[in-house]
Amino acid sequence: MVRRAASGDEGRRPTTIRDVAAHAGVSVATVSRILSGTYPSAPATRSKVMRAVRELDYVANANARGLAGASSRSVAIIVNSVVSPHYAHVAQGVQAQAALEGKLCIVGTTGGDPERELATVQLMRQEHAECVILVGNVVNDEAYRERMGEYARALALAGSRLVLCGRPALGPDVPALVVEYDNTGGAYSITSHLLSAGHRRILFLGRRDGYTTPDSRISGYRKALADHRVPHDPGLEVEGTMERREGYRMVRERLASGPRDFTAIFAGNDLIAAGARQALREEGLRVPDDVSMVGFDDLPPAADIDLTTVHVPHEELGRTAVRLALAREQDAGMAEHVLLGTHIIVRDSVRPLRNQAR
Amino acid sequence: MVRRAASGDEGRRPTTIRDVAAHAGVSVATVSRILSGTYPSAPATRSKVMRAVRELDYVANANARGLAGASSRSVAIIVNSVVSPHYAHVAQGVQAQAALEGKLCIVGTTGGDPERELATVQLMRQEHAECVILVGNVVNDEAYRERMGEYARALALAGSRLVLCGRPALGPDVPALVVEYDNTGGAYSITSHLLSAGHRRILFLGRRDGYTTPDSRISGYRKALADHRVPHDPGLEVEGTMERREGYRMVRERLASGPRDFTAIFAGNDLIAAGARQALREEGLRVPDDVSMVGFDDLPPAADIDLTTVHVPHEELGRTAVRLALAREQDAGMAEHVLLGTHIIVRDSVRPLRNQAR
Repeated sequence: MVRRAASGDEGRRPTTIRDVAAHAGVSVATVSRILSGTYPSAPATRSKVMRAVRELDYVANANARGLAGASSRSVAIIVNSVVSPHYAHVAQGVQAQAALEGKLCIVGTTGGDPERELATVQLMRQEHAECVILVGNVVNDEAYRERMGEYARALALAGSRLVLCGRPALGPDVPALVVEYDNTGGAYSITSHLLSAGHRRILFLGRRDGYTTPDSRISGYRKALADHRVPHDPGLEVEGTMERREGYRMVRERLASGPRDFTAIFAGNDLIAAGARQALREEGLRVPDDVSMVGFDDLPPAADIDLTTVHVPHEELGRTAVRLALAREQDAGMAEHVLLGTHIIVRDSVRPLRNQAR
Repeated sequence: MVRRAASGDEGRRPTTIRDVAAHAGVSVATVSRILSGTYPSAPATRSKVMRAVRELDYVANANARGLAGASSRSVAIIVNSVVSPHYAHVAQGVQAQAALEGKLCIVGTTGGDPERELATVQLMRQEHAECVILVGNVVNDEAYRERMGEYARALALAGSRLVLCGRPALGPDVPALVVEYDNTGGAYSITSHLLSAGHRRILFLGRRDGYTTPDSRISGYRKALADHRVPHDPGLEVEGTMERREGYRMVRERLASGPRDFTAIFAGNDLIAAGARQALREEGLRVPDDVSMVGFDDLPPAADIDLTTVHVPHEELGRTAVRLALAREQDAGMAEHVLLGTHIIVRDSVRPLRNQAR
């Protein structure tokens, strides 16, 4: 709770909500409703109240009093960047569920910097967000787990809750909720889809050892190869980050380094696929006539490039994170670790090997 | 500033930062640095300090003291949705400039609901964000202008600043900064580009009377037609919102309603263009061989569909908004209304009329 300032602070009797109501000629309840922003109000009434607020300088006192209530009505999500459609769609789910529950939604962005992440978690805690949702790919090392443990305990002390979204669980002693989706299962299914079409030399774009998301996707790829008794060639796993320009770079470099030694591509996500497709086109190679390709995420631009991909329930991840965090009072028996399923979306980017230029 | 609570509130002497430092065996300055999150710190040191914070329950006191500093280190941006690439890229610019200036960035989302907008502005003010940036398309009516005037004055009273981004100015008596971009000029240029290629029947997708962004784009379209002495046919202006599915719907309905009476399309933004392109393809019409098309925004998916479009400096809009808001102390003479330019990006979605199937 933001503490109430001792009224002596001002050196004069502070303006109260009653003063504002009297000045505006409305009830205290009306002023309260309008200032809390939780109910619709007639524009003319709001206008009268806001004029009274201005004229009596009530705003300057707001932190200590009237608006403090607003602070317990927010949920927070912290992401690297809102430009990434992956993060944006999870945030959209958080926003939608927050709206349903009558809460505000605030998004913190960190640019991937752990120090900014720490400062943003502190800000959200200070703001008394009811939960703080951290999203996405991480290096799951000791320093990370310790940092998350600190966040979880500090938030729990402040009456808030840490939710990890698309990240692995921390351990039984850490008071965090976890909402994951099935990266490995999705990667297994879509690799099997390529294998069933006869492909054996499948280039994987976006290996990044130690990072949880690419690691879990590549393990699904390897498992599918093994189950189909296709020899695993580590030379087909290309390192890169999950960005469009990286997809472009990886394919440009691969094609420049020697004759093409693959018939299909498994792009670590849809952005990589879009970049890879552009690099293929610049070499006169078409998808799927010359090269088959699949992605992961089912976000824009997958529909625009007709990409067969793995659907990740991004908005559902965000909604579930909020539901889980806010339901803890009513439903203590609710799972603290949720794994959402993924499935293939078939579009037009895969050809059976025999129908494809080799 | 969050007020300091009278220390008698607790009924016992509250834990101080000195207690934490002593318990952790580090200096007060180190505790302060680690809690403020503004400096890098060794994981082992942070871990010691955070343990002391937990053991002494220092967190519960944080609002009244140690972390209050964090609240003056944030900038806030409020958008309808982070899924829209337009909003997301402006937010990205805000985040990048905030990081440069050593500030945190928080994003509020409203789902387009004015009541949530009001509550979110209050939350940001309560949080003492140094500026609150509101982005995007609005109905510029009396109620809107009054609401913005209230925000601007309330924020000014709290020592913060309202910035309108991609929205028109409010008037000389309202303490708001404005960062706009040239919608009308961009629309004029890209319509001229189609006219220069010989097109005369240009379908405009996304008319929405009263909304500032489509209104300013359609006025550039009409002005270019007039300057090229091409008769204006209001029947070529199709109503719809700025979403992908709307682009699809508008073209589906248009093609179902009679013979094609246009040779080119000016899509109100790139999302509309992507949806329109899909609808054309389902009717066997290719861009640009059968129909020329241009968009507006230069965001994904423009590159993926090879769309000639108008580049909007989204990230620069966000960066400028932050620079303008934070520079007011040092540089009082700085403009309070900035108009950023737009320009055409030529890709491969326009053919001269004589080379195109009619």
